[in-house]
Amino acid sequence: MPLPLTIIKVGGAVVEDEARLNELLDGFCAISGRKVLVHGGGRRATAIASRLGIESTMVGGRRVTDRYMLEVVTMVYGGLVNKNIVAQLQARGTDALGLTGADIDVIRSHKRPVKDVDYGFVGDVERADGDKLTTLIEAGITPVMAPLTHDGHGMLLNTNADTIAAETAKALAKRYDVTLVYCFEKKGVLANPDDEDSVIPLITRADFARLVADGTVAGGMLPKLENAFNAISAGVSRVNITLATAIDGRHGTVIVP
Amino acid sequence: MPLPLTIIKVGGAVVEDEARLNELLDGFCAISGRKVLVHGGGRRATAIASRLGIESTMVGGRRVTDRYMLEVVTMVYGGLVNKNIVAQLQARGTDALGLTGADIDVIRSHKRPVKDVDYGFVGDVERADGDKLTTLIEAGITPVMAPLTHDGHGMLLNTNADTIAAETAKALAKRYDVTLVYCFEKKGVLANPDDEDSVIPLITRADFARLVADGTVAGGMLPKLENAFNAISAGVSRVNITLATAIDGRHGTVIVP
Repeated sequence: MPLPLTIIKVGGAVVEDEARLNELLDGFCAISGRKVLVHGGGRRATAIASRLGIESTMVGGRRVTDRYMLEVVTMVYGGLVNKNIVAQLQARGTDALGLTGADIDVIRSHKRPVKDVDYGFVGDVERADGDKLTTLIEAGITPVMAPLTHDGHGMLLNTNADTIAAETAKALAKRYDVTLVYCFEKKGVLANPDDEDSVIPLITRADFARLVADGTVAGGMLPKLENAFNAISAGVSRVNITLATAIDGRHGTVIVP
Repeated sequence: MPLPLTIIKVGGAVVEDEARLNELLDGFCAISGRKVLVHGGGRRATAIASRLGIESTMVGGRRVTDRYMLEVVTMVYGGLVNKNIVAQLQARGTDALGLTGADIDVIRSHKRPVKDVDYGFVGDVERADGDKLTTLIEAGITPVMAPLTHDGHGMLLNTNADTIAAETAKALAKRYDVTLVYCFEKKGVLANPDDEDSVIPLITRADFARLVADGTVAGGMLPKLENAFNAISAGVSRVNITLATAIDGRHGTVIVP
């Protein structure tokens, strides 16, 4: 029976709010056993870029990472956000280690090919190195992963934190019984979008097909659940979609095979 | 016989210059065996702070790190500089891992007590954790250390890179035959400050006393050599003061017991 391991992915909105971040980190430290924290970036990079006189270019609602913005996200995600989380976890007795994908080559990516849109220095993940993460984790270390990867040729690349969490979960599923928790702004997947308490507690693949067919799952939740089932297909035991204040595994929506 | 380990400390001026940094990293990768890179910060933090509208406060010629400047150095040293060096080393086949003192609690410090001057969020090092560094190094990892530490209570602290290099060298001297290399803007300690080629190849403690007495060693070189002999007293085998382009151990000034 493989050992349990929990991966928590938290977005930029929580990370940028000191009170919410503290609450999240308290909850994270209360999780027993092996664990990994993946954090997003958020609007702080945009705000700092703006103060530096760097314009945020958006194409089709998505940010383009030019070389100046790449410097900003390297500073903000890899430095400011990541290192403050690490220091806060150390203060709580969790032996945290901040990582970008470049550190010990833990996540390799390539620059997204230009099709209709050139997103600039954005990385599409090729692989996460589960063996190296396992070595750290078995040494009692808790990895804290920033949304940055590298291409192996010296280039850092801005990378979606949900993707980093999913790829890390898949890579670690070979060794551990992995629970992947996506912190979300709602209590879970809702049966009725107008009722915040209508959380669907469990979704199987068969349920998913039905929920898509009847229109319950739509919009931004659709790719989120597709990612979750991709992770499940790759061996992740369960995916939990829940509030950042409720990451103890007893809340939100659980997605299982 | 303990295994050899080389610690290279390089300052901000080299780190900020792409061509010089590439040359340094080529030289670093050519060093065989176990190694650690410690980098300084440099003027880039001042430049970025200025663009962010943060004034650099100097007292008695030394920078004061207020909370805004602490955010900037965390971004620039811990993110921009450290992660770019890590990505560049990975591209050269060196399995680098970027660390601040907060990461795996590797260097603990306390905020410098206020005496005549309040330097703000500046750390005086309490200890470096040689055991944890050894675990990483024996796993084939090359630590790349930024000039930031933490106090164990969640506060990051701006910390002198020379001190980080010396404390790391002392902590690792219990396990390894440590050579500590300080990259310097001159070829080494000069017998005649007007002759760039008058490098003193070897300085023992007895030589040092004589060089201080006759005025050959003075000014900024005095604390540098005092630090070097402190490291030697704590078990470091030798300290090398040399150009960033000549870190192969066959150049500059070597300081031995």
